[in-house]
Amino acid sequence: MNTFGHLFRITTFGESHGGAVGVVVDGCPPRIPITPEEIQFELDRRRPGQSKLTTQRKESDTVHILSGVFEGRTLGTPILMLVYNEDARPQAYESFKHLYRPSHADYTYQAKYGIRNWQGGGRSSARETVGRVAAGALAKKVLRTLWNVEILAWVEQIHTLEAQVDPETVTLEQVESNPVRCPDADAAQKMMRRIEQVRKQGDSVGGVIRCIARNVPPGWGSPVFDKLEADLAKAVMSLPASKGFEIGSGFRGTRLRGSEHNDEFYTDEFGRVRTRTNFSGGVQGGISNGEVIDLRVAFKPTATIFKPQQTVSETGEAAILQARGRHDPCVLPRAVPMVEAMVALVLIDHALRHRGQCGEHPPKEVQFPRHSGGE
Amino acid sequence: MNTFGHLFRITTFGESHGGAVGVVVDGCPPRIPITPEEIQFELDRRRPGQSKLTTQRKESDTVHILSGVFEGRTLGTPILMLVYNEDARPQAYESFKHLYRPSHADYTYQAKYGIRNWQGGGRSSARETVGRVAAGALAKKVLRTLWNVEILAWVEQIHTLEAQVDPETVTLEQVESNPVRCPDADAAQKMMRRIEQVRKQGDSVGGVIRCIARNVPPGWGSPVFDKLEADLAKAVMSLPASKGFEIGSGFRGTRLRGSEHNDEFYTDEFGRVRTRTNFSGGVQGGISNGEVIDLRVAFKPTATIFKPQQTVSETGEAAILQARGRHDPCVLPRAVPMVEAMVALVLIDHALRHRGQCGEHPPKEVQFPRHSGGE
Amino acid sequence: MNTFGHLFRITTFGESHGGAVGVVVDGCPPRIPITPEEIQFELDRRRPGQSKLTTQRKESDTVHILSGVFEGRTLGTPILMLVYNEDARPQAYESFKHLYRPSHADYTYQAKYGIRNWQGGGRSSARETVGRVAAGALAKKVLRTLWNVEILAWVEQIHTLEAQVDPETVTLEQVESNPVRCPDADAAQKMMRRIEQVRKQGDSVGGVIRCIARNVPPGWGSPVFDKLEADLAKAVMSLPASKGFEIGSGFRGTRLRGSEHNDEFYTDEFGRVRTRTNFSGGVQGGISNGEVIDLRVAFKPTATIFKPQQTVSETGEAAILQARGRHDPCVLPRAVPMVEAMVALVLIDHALRHRGQCGEHPPKEVQFPRHSGGE
Amino acid sequence: MNTFGHLFRITTFGESHGGAVGVVVDGCPPRIPITPEEIQFELDRRRPGQSKLTTQRKESDTVHILSGVFEGRTLGTPILMLVYNEDARPQAYESFKHLYRPSHADYTYQAKYGIRNWQGGGRSSARETVGRVAAGALAKKVLRTLWNVEILAWVEQIHTLEAQVDPETVTLEQVESNPVRCPDADAAQKMMRRIEQVRKQGDSVGGVIRCIARNVPPGWGSPVFDKLEADLAKAVMSLPASKGFEIGSGFRGTRLRGSEHNDEFYTDEFGRVRTRTNFSGGVQGGISNGEVIDLRVAFKPTATIFKPQQTVSETGEAAILQARGRHDPCVLPRAVPMVEAMVALVLIDHALRHRGQCGEHPPKEVQFPRHSGGE
Repeated sequence: MNTFGHLFRITTFGESHGGAVGVVVDGCPPRIPITPEEIQFELDRRRPGQSKLTTQRKESDTVHILSGVFEGRTLGTPILMLVYNEDARPQAYESFKHLYRPSHADYTYQAKYGIRNWQGGGRSSARETVGRVAAGALAKKVLRTLWNVEILAWVEQIHTLEAQVDPETVTLEQVESNPVRCPDADAAQKMMRRIEQVRKQGDSVGGVIRCIARNVPPGWGSPVFDKLEADLAKAVMSLPASKGFEIGSGFRGTRLRGSEHNDEFYTDEFGRVRTRTNFSGGVQGGISNGEVIDLRVAFKPTATIFKPQQTVSETGEAAILQARGRHDPCVLPRAVPMVEAMVALVLIDHALRHRGQCGEHPPKEVQFPRHSGGE
Repeated sequence: MNTFGHLFRITTFGESHGGAVGVVVDGCPPRIPITPEEIQFELDRRRPGQSKLTTQRKESDTVHILSGVFEGRTLGTPILMLVYNEDARPQAYESFKHLYRPSHADYTYQAKYGIRNWQGGGRSSARETVGRVAAGALAKKVLRTLWNVEILAWVEQIHTLEAQVDPETVTLEQVESNPVRCPDADAAQKMMRRIEQVRKQGDSVGGVIRCIARNVPPGWGSPVFDKLEADLAKAVMSLPASKGFEIGSGFRGTRLRGSEHNDEFYTDEFGRVRTRTNFSGGVQGGISNGEVIDLRVAFKPTATIFKPQQTVSETGEAAILQARGRHDPCVLPRAVPMVEAMVALVLIDHALRHRGQCGEHPPKEVQFPRHSGGE
Repeated sequence: MNTFGHLFRITTFGESHGGAVGVVVDGCPPRIPITPEEIQFELDRRRPGQSKLTTQRKESDTVHILSGVFEGRTLGTPILMLVYNEDARPQAYESFKHLYRPSHADYTYQAKYGIRNWQGGGRSSARETVGRVAAGALAKKVLRTLWNVEILAWVEQIHTLEAQVDPETVTLEQVESNPVRCPDADAAQKMMRRIEQVRKQGDSVGGVIRCIARNVPPGWGSPVFDKLEADLAKAVMSLPASKGFEIGSGFRGTRLRGSEHNDEFYTDEFGRVRTRTNFSGGVQGGISNGEVIDLRVAFKPTATIFKPQQTVSETGEAAILQARGRHDPCVLPRAVPMVEAMVALVLIDHALRHRGQCGEHPPKEVQFPRHSGGE
Repeated sequence: MNTFGHLFRITTFGESHGGAVGVVVDGCPPRIPITPEEIQFELDRRRPGQSKLTTQRKESDTVHILSGVFEGRTLGTPILMLVYNEDARPQAYESFKHLYRPSHADYTYQAKYGIRNWQGGGRSSARETVGRVAAGALAKKVLRTLWNVEILAWVEQIHTLEAQVDPETVTLEQVESNPVRCPDADAAQKMMRRIEQVRKQGDSVGGVIRCIARNVPPGWGSPVFDKLEADLAKAVMSLPASKGFEIGSGFRGTRLRGSEHNDEFYTDEFGRVRTRTNFSGGVQGGISNGEVIDLRVAFKPTATIFKPQQTVSETGEAAILQARGRHDPCVLPRAVPMVEAMVALVLIDHALRHRGQCGEHPPKEVQFPRHSGGE
């Protein structure tokens, strides 16, 4: 379905080449100051045409907030945020409207629904994420306002190129300092060259995005099925092109022994319970422990390439598909705000659920650390 | 929360050392034949004390079906399946009841709830999965009965040891042929030696479980947030000790180019649309494409080890924890049926939702392949 | 929250004087033909300014379908239907923006959220129902297309005036034959005079709407909490100004004995199991029995009147409120399509859930009647 | 489905003649003191065999709490409460196992599921409410502990006999002072005679239960679909045999004018915003306003009577049904705790949702009255 979350609940809508894309946010706490500019900032990070690295589709992606905000503050009622489609060119898709593009969702949508909007992938287009990013911008604002939580993602790997980034100290400014959104300047240069290279070849590459959340208080997350890491996994695995998820030590942790992997506890100078290492990635037993939430997402190479590919038509006949149109040779730079948005949506929902079930104030029986950065 | 699924919906309950653990299954299709023995078969695969590789806790884990089944068939009403706790030894935990065990959930439960059952980890114990496995056994039966879907998982990696397994041909018999549940006999031998070795050292190891689902028809899965891979990720990331998830090419796929990674379509001898490769892992755009569903789950090394560890008490004082009790040096052999159960629960729920929203029969507009095994 | 339904799920948004009101419909079955005109027909029945009986606010209420429909058919993806606000006159509310209007939601919104849009009641305005009626129009189309189900409501009582209507034979044309939507022509005349009379006095009246659903197959509804009558009750009791609900015999049935009230079974000439009476209102044990679904809804007199009323301000000071603006002296004629919409939304959701959990075809074990009218 | 609630979520299970009936409560706030005796008190009010007025089935209905409570306090984890069936006599139903009992759910369960447990009505038996009442007992305890909310129901009408009860002053002791649970002693005497009379005739009667909730703070309830009155309506309309619901003025209010019906505001001596009348029944715009929640539920006469009735068999043949077994000639005395339970479940869920979305403390912008009794 197209709804995500329980208390902070979003519903997205819109096809790539339909009238509009956007989101309804329901359950947002009231009296949170929000401006269109704050939403637009994140949409601009997601927007096509930012640089040569991304698709040249021209969309201003201007957000319209049509309900739920009054005199600059949230009302507690549903917030409709909408972006009209502008630069739709369905004719670019006309020539292969009856063909299934490899590793796209053409075939599976047809198999499921018996109908599909073949123009630009319809609902399966990455354009669908406009609504997520707008909702995520709002979620980030609420998290920052009520709990001082900060969420930050960056590109950690492109194709075979890996960056070295210190999650303790990395800042939004560093992430935004180059078009590839990799805060390791040297790696960023190589990544941009690699992307430009495959673009010229009509090919594509994938990579890995890392995301952290700072200042998450201990206690968020809901055992046993709605564990924080489970909901984070679902959230980012629902993004187009994602193929893998890790929290904390992830797959690398499988090669360690328990005595190497366990995060030992200590009490810090502020009397907070802390762990010396963070292989857990900020979550234990599905509940945040006050350390930095730390996760990684694998994105496959973009499915749209400009080389001839074998495929079949809707009637099952073999065909050669030669894509045209405007596409990203690498989705990752634009996926950075998407990952942040999904992480924010999970955290705000768990924050509200925790407050609902366990109350505003920490139980007296326990000392609650507030994380101050650092693993 | 402790509920999973929408139309086929399970709710689990029970602490490790409470009165009972189990599950209520709601929404199960009516008139499905089911016996306690079919449930027990899977519980026995999960049960402690199966071999020297696993904890020596003695639990028969006998299932009691107390509602929802009448004269050997499901009624369509809630099915309560319950296992009474037998070999609870809370005194084994008495000595460190006020200490937070490293990389366990003691601290986070205390932080969230201000109270916890310290006996055997309470609800955060792996014993909580009894209910999931019982429900998963039922889900597997329904999937097999109505759609001929088959689900199979096995151990693919223990610590640094990797197995070679052909997902096309591997069978349940091969998986069950050794206590480590690795169908590669040579690797299995090495794995068992490795586990025995770390057990003697009071240490632990993790690894990777792979799981496939055969014969899933095209069309299951629900864009955009409830994508099949997203729900699968959530399902297995909600299992205790899981730290990573991959579908299809996963993290390895990030190092390929689009031209290498795309799954080209063809029409097979039965007129079905198929793909020549399966980097997609059986899912495209969140919807099954008729190929084998193929996923991997990373499990960290067991948190309970028998070496002294630094930690803090509930009042924040530094302490040394020396675990006692009966524990698995490696959780993976017993986690195999848990992974299968969670995958089954995702698939049955999507099967019913698909049937509800799109109807029993495939749309006439599309040719529906039914997968017949093989990638 | 602002979401209703599980498989056919709607989310409404919009304040009375904000940018727009509308709905996102998620889970609509694919390939259903739908035109804007079919939606507009129902919106026009709900629209203000239809006659002297209703508010003179001028709104064309033109629907815009911005996603989810392609070449005249539903895609299975979310359908955004939106109506822009045109004739908003917030200044009419300016003079009492700090007063709580009696029996309105001003005070409770302020108490809940600490903020409210005081312009026209904001989200608590009956204008919020635009989205429901649009979604209901779609639901009715799906029900008619897939199951031949017909839903019809009418005004049965205004103030102390009661109509005599035969639910067996009443038609949409009869309901629409006069502005008060009462198919008893004599009663309708009296009702219109009564409404005109109280309008001139600056007062208001309430009444009762009755609604039936024909051709609902046996088997819809989901025990035990989502009983069909329970979901119908919730649906209509969520409409503005509703104060009571009855299914079948309702409160009058409490004065009968079991021997008078029980609906005896017989087999009709088509071999269908039927009941001779319909005190049950088409539902037994929460599940439809193939007879006509028959329910009644009580609506209180409109809260906005033009007589001076005592109230208090936001700061708690006593004040006299004298309403201005454009208001309905009686909400019932416009509430008829709202009741139909809510009933349709409940039925379509249960239809899809039943198909999901129990399958497309009736079980062989039972003979399924299809109701052909008549109680 | 068999789950109710969002944050305080219950799932019930069990057939009348199966192994057990009961409930899993999920999301209960932690650290609430609770004893089995507190649960048992409410189960005893619901229990069969309390007096000659009710069925003579012998069930001790002893509750077993098997999880979620530790050392006398809730853990925040799922609470399993279970009652084993003792006095099941399926043979009493053997003679009409193939007949559909009029105004029972035999036919509709068969139509929906193609199978049913014919022993004592299976899941459609009022015995299903054991789990609701147990969960409601817990909900009442949480409401009383955290918010001092008090819920009280009583019998207001039996057949044609109406009681006069002052909702301001009525107490639990008065309700419990006679077996019919009517605090008007004179009316109670007449009601008991009427019930005894119809019992001897092998017939049955229905009636009306009224329920109030005191001290509900303003702000609970969630527009627009989850209005407090909508969720209350759904809750009580999901009880067996309920046919109607009213909040506040209900159907009688439809005969008043707006100028008579509006609840004017004033500020009381404690500075709280109050209304002089309570036609609204404590709810405005779906949100509690601090006045007493006031609702009424219609129950039909018990379907099981001991007179011969015409019906049909599963194969559609006409038959005469002559009921045997042990049955209530009037369900209302035992339904009183059921209504209280359902009202409690709605209120606790909205309390937690409100706290989650809007925070623990009332917004500074508004003065929050706490109701102290009296309309």
